[in-house]
Amino acid sequence: MTQTVVESKSKTAIIGFDQPFCVIGERINPTGRKKLAAELEAGDFSTVEKDALEQVAAGATMLDVNAGVVYNSNPNPNETEPPLMRQMIELVQGLTDVPLCIDSSVPGALEAGLEAAEGRPLLNSVTGEEERLEAILPLVKKYNVPVVAISNDDTGISEDPEVRFAVAKKIVERAADFGIPAHDIVVDPLVMPVGAMGTAGLQVFALVKRLREELRVNTTCGASNISFGLPNRHGLGAAFLPMAIQAGMTSAIMNPIRPQEMEAVRAANFLMNNDPHGAEWIRTNKAPGEAPAGARGGREGRRRRRAS
Amino acid sequence: MTQTVVESKSKTAIIGFDQPFCVIGERINPTGRKKLAAELEAGDFSTVEKDALEQVAAGATMLDVNAGVVYNSNPNPNETEPPLMRQMIELVQGLTDVPLCIDSSVPGALEAGLEAAEGRPLLNSVTGEEERLEAILPLVKKYNVPVVAISNDDTGISEDPEVRFAVAKKIVERAADFGIPAHDIVVDPLVMPVGAMGTAGLQVFALVKRLREELRVNTTCGASNISFGLPNRHGLGAAFLPMAIQAGMTSAIMNPIRPQEMEAVRAANFLMNNDPHGAEWIRTNKAPGEAPAGARGGREGRRRRRAS
Repeated sequence: MTQTVVESKSKTAIIGFDQPFCVIGERINPTGRKKLAAELEAGDFSTVEKDALEQVAAGATMLDVNAGVVYNSNPNPNETEPPLMRQMIELVQGLTDVPLCIDSSVPGALEAGLEAAEGRPLLNSVTGEEERLEAILPLVKKYNVPVVAISNDDTGISEDPEVRFAVAKKIVERAADFGIPAHDIVVDPLVMPVGAMGTAGLQVFALVKRLREELRVNTTCGASNISFGLPNRHGLGAAFLPMAIQAGMTSAIMNPIRPQEMEAVRAANFLMNNDPHGAEWIRTNKAPGEAPAGARGGREGRRRRRAS
Repeated sequence: MTQTVVESKSKTAIIGFDQPFCVIGERINPTGRKKLAAELEAGDFSTVEKDALEQVAAGATMLDVNAGVVYNSNPNPNETEPPLMRQMIELVQGLTDVPLCIDSSVPGALEAGLEAAEGRPLLNSVTGEEERLEAILPLVKKYNVPVVAISNDDTGISEDPEVRFAVAKKIVERAADFGIPAHDIVVDPLVMPVGAMGTAGLQVFALVKRLREELRVNTTCGASNISFGLPNRHGLGAAFLPMAIQAGMTSAIMNPIRPQEMEAVRAANFLMNNDPHGAEWIRTNKAPGEAPAGARGGREGRRRRRAS
């Protein structure tokens, strides 16, 4: 069974086929959050602290940390992002004990995060682009960490799932050349918006199965992409996640604060037999003093009785 | 592609691998509903009327009709159920135009329903029990209707999915001896409560795949069984249905009045590319005058931008 081991100083999270789904909290990310970006430039980390604590309380397995602010005072992220990443990693690992995911497109920021992080963080991310492979894989090897591999390359994101699979395969092979094992690569097959491409869901389900069976890698995705531009995005996400999990997906970068999606993930864990005796399901769903749910009874008896 | 055609006088419903999930409304059933049973014995059909209209309004594709009352005045269902079934079928098909599912364990009631039903109803059900096979398959052949086949036999319900698959295979083979094609058989692989058997979900997902690939039949289930005895049953059901649909299940006997499960089914239809352009998803989720959901924007851009 493929297992990707991610660690904080004191806690281990395993991404794996026989593990509860790994929820990587996406909130600590200033991209598209102007207020947070301004706070970070001003040295105000109160929102980061709040996002860290809230996501862990909501059930996040790991926290993604992205320091991608373009400072008004200095527009060069190669200079500003590495020290900010270091600060943010130190802050978050001082506040919570969950493993971290160091998220940047700036190699210097990834290395700063790797230097600052205790334990064995997940690096996010490498792509199939030549320049990225050459910059990131040596870091992955040097620090002996697992890495997210996104299935696009120098030609961009292909709408053809065969091409995205081939890019993932290329990354796994290139990583092997560096001595990085497949179980330390978590492939993001890229989720297209189903509103723009009707086959988006089917593509992901099929890709996840192939990635698992042929490359034997764990998988992740930016789960909210699926519902881009559509009404009731949480309703779609709450169906997409169990379907992807049933197909074999083992983690997602998502917002754990949304109860609808988290409930769907917990239900899927139980239904995949990765929540022994439903302990987590019962703990998170049973109000104190509530009557046993079975007592509501009735309808299931109908089918079962008839069938017996 | 396997297609099971079910018809009312004026409307066709197709159960199939490339069709929207077929929701068979389970409400018109006095089993476990003492008040409804008493009403039916007294000749009061107001609840049946209400249940029929409400389920169709909620989006049921078909309606199950079960007349399984044990009269206080006459404890022999072989005498009382056939005329009651006839009355109920006539009533429901006069009120709504969706196809019907004639549901009884009394062969005489099934035949009374078949005589009364217009179009091509679904018969519910035959099992692998010898006596049932001999009683029901001739009716299926005589009336040229599709039938639900439940995977238990004279030895009861097996906890071993291999045995349940073998029972389904036996029913399909026996039906073939009667000249009944596999596409007119909708197999219920039997859903166990996940609270009692941790592998219950995995069993169903695996069985549905095999039934589809090896026997090429459509499938159904009593969906609510999965959550028997557990808290937040609708939350579990709303994950189970998309997972089963992703595995290949094509219909369920369920309560369409529950918005959480119906939303999950509609989302799954969209994600399986069986809701062209998301028209049904958008129709059922967009409040009049609501701002386009895409305008809420933001978070998906983060992953997509970085990946591009």
